[in-house]
Amino acid sequence: MERIVRSTWALGLVILLLTCAACKTRERSEAVRPAEPTGQRSAGGAPPTIASRQAEDGQWLMAAKDYANTRFSGLEQINTGNVAQLKAAWTFSTGLDRGHEAAPLIVGSTMYIVTPFPNYLYALDLTQAGAPVKWVYRPEPSASAQGVACCDVVNRGAAYADGRIFYNTLDNHTVAVDAETGQEIWKTKVGEINRGESMTMAPIVVKGKVLVGNSGGEFGVRGWLTAIDTGSGRVAWRAYSTGPDEDVLIGPAFKPFYAQDRGKDLGVRTWPPEAWKIGGGTVWGWISYDPELDLIYYGTGNPGPWNPDQRKGDNKWTSGVFARDPDTGEARWFYQWNPHDLHDYDGINENVLLDLKINGRPRKVMVRPERNGYVYVLDRVTGEVLSADPFVHITSTKGVDLKSGRPILAPDKEMKVGKVVREICPASPGAKDWQPSAYSPRTGLLYMPHNNLCQDAEGVEANYIAGTPFVGANVRMYAGPGGNRGAFTAWDPVGRRAVWSVRENFPAWSGALVTAGDVVFYGTMDGWFKALHAVTGKELWKFKVGSGIIGQPVSYRGPDGKQYVAILSGVGGWAGAIVAGELDPRDATAALGFAGAMKDLPDHTTKGGMLYVFALP
Amino acid sequence: MERIVRSTWALGLVILLLTCAACKTRERSEAVRPAEPTGQRSAGGAPPTIASRQAEDGQWLMAAKDYANTRFSGLEQINTGNVAQLKAAWTFSTGLDRGHEAAPLIVGSTMYIVTPFPNYLYALDLTQAGAPVKWVYRPEPSASAQGVACCDVVNRGAAYADGRIFYNTLDNHTVAVDAETGQEIWKTKVGEINRGESMTMAPIVVKGKVLVGNSGGEFGVRGWLTAIDTGSGRVAWRAYSTGPDEDVLIGPAFKPFYAQDRGKDLGVRTWPPEAWKIGGGTVWGWISYDPELDLIYYGTGNPGPWNPDQRKGDNKWTSGVFARDPDTGEARWFYQWNPHDLHDYDGINENVLLDLKINGRPRKVMVRPERNGYVYVLDRVTGEVLSADPFVHITSTKGVDLKSGRPILAPDKEMKVGKVVREICPASPGAKDWQPSAYSPRTGLLYMPHNNLCQDAEGVEANYIAGTPFVGANVRMYAGPGGNRGAFTAWDPVGRRAVWSVRENFPAWSGALVTAGDVVFYGTMDGWFKALHAVTGKELWKFKVGSGIIGQPVSYRGPDGKQYVAILSGVGGWAGAIVAGELDPRDATAALGFAGAMKDLPDHTTKGGMLYVFALP
Repeated sequence: MERIVRSTWALGLVILLLTCAACKTRERSEAVRPAEPTGQRSAGGAPPTIASRQAEDGQWLMAAKDYANTRFSGLEQINTGNVAQLKAAWTFSTGLDRGHEAAPLIVGSTMYIVTPFPNYLYALDLTQAGAPVKWVYRPEPSASAQGVACCDVVNRGAAYADGRIFYNTLDNHTVAVDAETGQEIWKTKVGEINRGESMTMAPIVVKGKVLVGNSGGEFGVRGWLTAIDTGSGRVAWRAYSTGPDEDVLIGPAFKPFYAQDRGKDLGVRTWPPEAWKIGGGTVWGWISYDPELDLIYYGTGNPGPWNPDQRKGDNKWTSGVFARDPDTGEARWFYQWNPHDLHDYDGINENVLLDLKINGRPRKVMVRPERNGYVYVLDRVTGEVLSADPFVHITSTKGVDLKSGRPILAPDKEMKVGKVVREICPASPGAKDWQPSAYSPRTGLLYMPHNNLCQDAEGVEANYIAGTPFVGANVRMYAGPGGNRGAFTAWDPVGRRAVWSVRENFPAWSGALVTAGDVVFYGTMDGWFKALHAVTGKELWKFKVGSGIIGQPVSYRGPDGKQYVAILSGVGGWAGAIVAGELDPRDATAALGFAGAMKDLPDHTTKGGMLYVFALP
Repeated sequence: MERIVRSTWALGLVILLLTCAACKTRERSEAVRPAEPTGQRSAGGAPPTIASRQAEDGQWLMAAKDYANTRFSGLEQINTGNVAQLKAAWTFSTGLDRGHEAAPLIVGSTMYIVTPFPNYLYALDLTQAGAPVKWVYRPEPSASAQGVACCDVVNRGAAYADGRIFYNTLDNHTVAVDAETGQEIWKTKVGEINRGESMTMAPIVVKGKVLVGNSGGEFGVRGWLTAIDTGSGRVAWRAYSTGPDEDVLIGPAFKPFYAQDRGKDLGVRTWPPEAWKIGGGTVWGWISYDPELDLIYYGTGNPGPWNPDQRKGDNKWTSGVFARDPDTGEARWFYQWNPHDLHDYDGINENVLLDLKINGRPRKVMVRPERNGYVYVLDRVTGEVLSADPFVHITSTKGVDLKSGRPILAPDKEMKVGKVVREICPASPGAKDWQPSAYSPRTGLLYMPHNNLCQDAEGVEANYIAGTPFVGANVRMYAGPGGNRGAFTAWDPVGRRAVWSVRENFPAWSGALVTAGDVVFYGTMDGWFKALHAVTGKELWKFKVGSGIIGQPVSYRGPDGKQYVAILSGVGGWAGAIVAGELDPRDATAALGFAGAMKDLPDHTTKGGMLYVFALP
C-alpha cells in the first residue's frame, strides 16, 4: 500500500519520506531541518542537551515536540497494522478537575505534567511500574488569577532545557524547576493580575531564553512576548504587540512584505488615541523557531475590546504573526491575518515550519491554519502569503487578496453596535482555535483538529476598568453547516485541499499527534481518544477516557523500549467551560457566547483530570 | 490442577463446588441458598425481578452482590489462565474528588454509580460504546451534612429492586429513583443533621422494604436501622440500637444465646443515666438476609463517646450484631462483639452467611471478620459463637471466651482519661473496617482486605453538644508488627486459619470480589487494582488506576456477552481523608488519629473519582 524510502542525512538524522497512492498530487515535503541534531536515542538514559532536542530520540521536550511545531513522532512501533491492539498501560489522576490542555513532557525516564490552576508540576518515574510520583512542585499562584482567566484556568504545558523545566503560572510567573529534584531555581514575575493579565501558554526555549507571553485579551490587556534568561531568570527583552515601535522592538531590520505594515509607530497610529494601551494582541499561543534563519514566529491575539467600533483602524500589531530575532527580540517582519479584527479572530494559532515545493520551487514556508478559516502558506523568510484557502464554511470574508495580503471582508457580516449580525462563520473561536495541528513528513499532510461554528453577534459599548472583562459583544454560537460542531481534517498544504475530514459532534478541541507509524491521534470533548490512519482517515482504534479531552497527545519511548502514547483527559477550556465551570446551560451568552453552542456537553461528559498512557500489549 | 464438579439444584441454580489440592483440610462449604432463584441470564435484557436477584445472571443488584454478602460472581470468562490479558475497556469520571467507596450496580444493560457527596446517581448505557450517561439524578443534599461526616463524605452504594434504585444521601434522605428514567419516585427524610446524623451506607431491599441505617458515631448520635416501604417511601419500622426494649424492638421473640444479653431494657440499664440517648450504635455497615430463616443480620457501631469512662456498663446494644424479622423489625437475637467497647471497635462489618460443616456437622453460620481482630463463626439461627480466631496481631484482648461469649480483655490496654496507653492492637479502624470481604464457594475461602494498625490512645472528657464531634480520645495510629499497614488475607473459616496473606503498604481499604474463574480482585490506596489467584494468592495482574482505590469491585456480563470487572477509584474515606480532605500531614491526630499513620499517602496517590471497567481483549 505504501512505499517508504529511507535516507540518512549527513548529521545522522533519519528523515522519512513517503510516496503513497493517496498523496499523488503532493510534492516532496519535509519538516524544517533541525539546527544541531544528534541521532542518539536517549530515552531512559541521561537527560538530553538542548542540541539534541530536534532529533527523534523517543522523548518529548516541548509541547509542540519540535521547533517546527510538527507534533510528529518518529516512533513507529505503534502503526496502522497494530494500533487496534493499543491498551491503557497506566493512568494518573492530577487531583484537579478544570480543563487539562497541557502536553506531558518526557525527558529521559521522567514524565512531567503541568496541571491547570494551581499549576502543579508532577514528575512521574517511568522506570517504575505505574509511574509513581517522584516529586510535585507546587508554585502556589495567587487565587485571584482565576478571576482574570477568561474561560477556564488552563495551562498548555512546559518546556525542557538544560536540566530544567520551564513553565508559567496563571498568576503571571515564569518558573524554572530542577528537572531532577523538583527544586525551584527561579521564579520571575512577568505580568499583573490587577491589569487583567494571566498566563496559560506553553513556553519554548531558544538559545538560552525562555519565551513566554501573556493572556487576557478579554480584559483590556496589552499583549507581549517576553524572553527570560534560562540561567538567571532575568528578563532579556520584551516585545509588545501594540504601541510605539520602540516598545514593539521594531527597528531598521523590520521588513514586512506588505506596504500596509510599513511606517512609523503603526502600533499607535492604527488605533484611536490611547486605545493601543488596552488593545490586546496577547501572546498565549504557539511559538516556532527556525534555527537556520534564526527567527522565531508567533501569533498575536485579537484586539480588544471585541466591539470594533471602539477601535477604528487596523489595530496593529494584533491578530497577526511576527518574525523576530530570538537574541534581541527585534522584529523582522509581520503579517496581519485580520486587520481591524471584527470577530475575535485571535491570531495565536500554531505556525508549522516546513520546506515545501510550491509551484515547483522549494520554499521555506510556514503553514498556518487560521481562526478566520483559511490555511495560509507564507514564505517564512519574507512574510509573503503564497496561498490562503478555506478549510471551513466562511461567511465573514470572501477570500484573501494575495496582492495586498488583506482578507476581503463581507460587509453584511461586520459586527456593529445595536445590530445583531447573523450567521457569522467562523464564530469567535475560529475555524480552529488554540488546538494545535500536527504534520507528517511521511504523508505531507497537516492534521487539524478544528471547529465548525457560526454565530450571531451584536456590539455593545465596553467600559475599561483594569482587571475586569472588556469585551463589548453579545454573542451566540451554534453549529455551522452540517450540524457538526467540529471536525478533524487532513490538509495538503501543497495541493491546497482537504484530503479527508472526519466530522465531530463537538469542536475537536484537543491537539493532534502524528507518528512514523502513520497513525494520527486526537481526542474529543465527549471523551474518545482516537487513532486514525494518517493516509486514509479511517478510524483504527478508540478508547473512552473518563472526561472529555482537550489536551495534547504525545508519544515517547519508555525505558523498556516500548512506544507509548499519552494524553491528559479533563474537559474544560473555553469550549468546555460549561462543564468545568458548571455554567448554567440556560445562559447561551455564558463563556463569551460559547456556552450556548455547548449546552448539551454536560450530558456527554463529566469533569476530572486524568492522564492516560497507552501501549501495545 | 483443579477438579470442578457441577451440580444443578432443583430450582435451576448452578452451585459450583471445588475440590482442590490447596484446600485439602477444608470441608464442603457453600453460600446460603437463595430464596427464589431463577437461572435466567437477563443481562442486556429486561430488568430482573427481586426474585431473580440471587441467581447468577451476570448482573450486580446490590453492593454485596447477594443477600449472603458473598461478593462472589459466578462468571468465569475471566479466569486464572487469562486474567493477565485483562485490559481497560472504558473509563468514566464522576467529576468529584472525595472518597469513592461505592459498588457500581449493573441492572440489565445499565450501570448505576452513586458518588460521594453531593450523591449523584449516574445511569450509564452499557449497550453503547463507551457507556454514555443515560441520565443523572442529583438529589441536592444539604451542604451542612458534610460538617457531620466524621472522616469523608463517602457513599457505599445503592440497591436495585422492582424497577427502582434505592440509596441514601449524606443529609439523611433515602431516595427511590426510577431505574429507567431517573425520575425521583420518593424521597424520605429519616435523620437529622442537627443531631449529628448522616448516611453513608448501602441499603438492601428485603421483602418490599428498604433497610437503611445512620452514621454519626462520633457525633453523639443514637443509632438505628429503619425499614422503608419500597412502594410508598413510608417508614415501616425503626429499631434503635440503644434505649428501652420498645425502641429497640425487643419483645417476646428475642432469644439471645448468652445470658448477659437477657433482661429488661438493657439498652438503658447498661448505660449511665441518659447516656444511651447519645450512645452511638449507628448502623452504617452491611446487612445480610437469610430468606430461609427469614432473618436479617447487621452490626451496630461503637458506643459514644470513645472515652469509655463516660459510659460505664456494657453499652448495649452497641458493637454487636442483631438478627431481626424483616417484616416487623422484631429482634430475634443479639451478640455483642465488644461489650463496653474501649477502642472504637465499630461493629458494623459484613456478616457472610454460609452453610458450612463445622466439626462434621452442617451448620447455618455467619462468618464475621471483626474489627477487634477475630474471625467469628456464629450459628446464625441462635447467635452462638462457634469459633473466634485472630487474623492479625492483637494486644487489646487475649481471646474470646466461647462460654460467656465475651472477649478476654487485656487490662493494661484499657483506654483511660489522663493516661496514654501504648500499643493497642488493632487500632480504632480495627483489624478490618468497613471494607467488605468476599467468599468463594469454590475455594471455601473468605477473602479479606484489611488493616494492620496499632495505636497509642488517651481518653479525654468529651462534652456533648448536638451536631458537634463527641469523641473524647486522643489517638495516634501506626503500622502494626511487620511495618505493613494492610494485608489481603484468604481465610479458611472451617479450618480456622489463614491460607495465604499478601502484605500491603497501606490499609487494604477497598472491597473484595471473587469469581468463578478463581480470580480475586481488590484495590490498594496507592492505586493498584489487583487480581490474585484465589487458591494460591499469587498476583496474576495489576493495573495502575488514577487515584487510590477504596471502592468495591464488581463483575458483570455486558450486553455483548463479555465478562467485565468494574471498580471506582478515588481515594478518601477515613483512611484516605488526608488526601481527599487535604489534611496537614503534620497533625498526627487529624482524622481521629488516622492521619498520623497515613502521612506519606499524599506522596503515593492523588485525588480523583474515576470508574474503570476491564475486560479481556
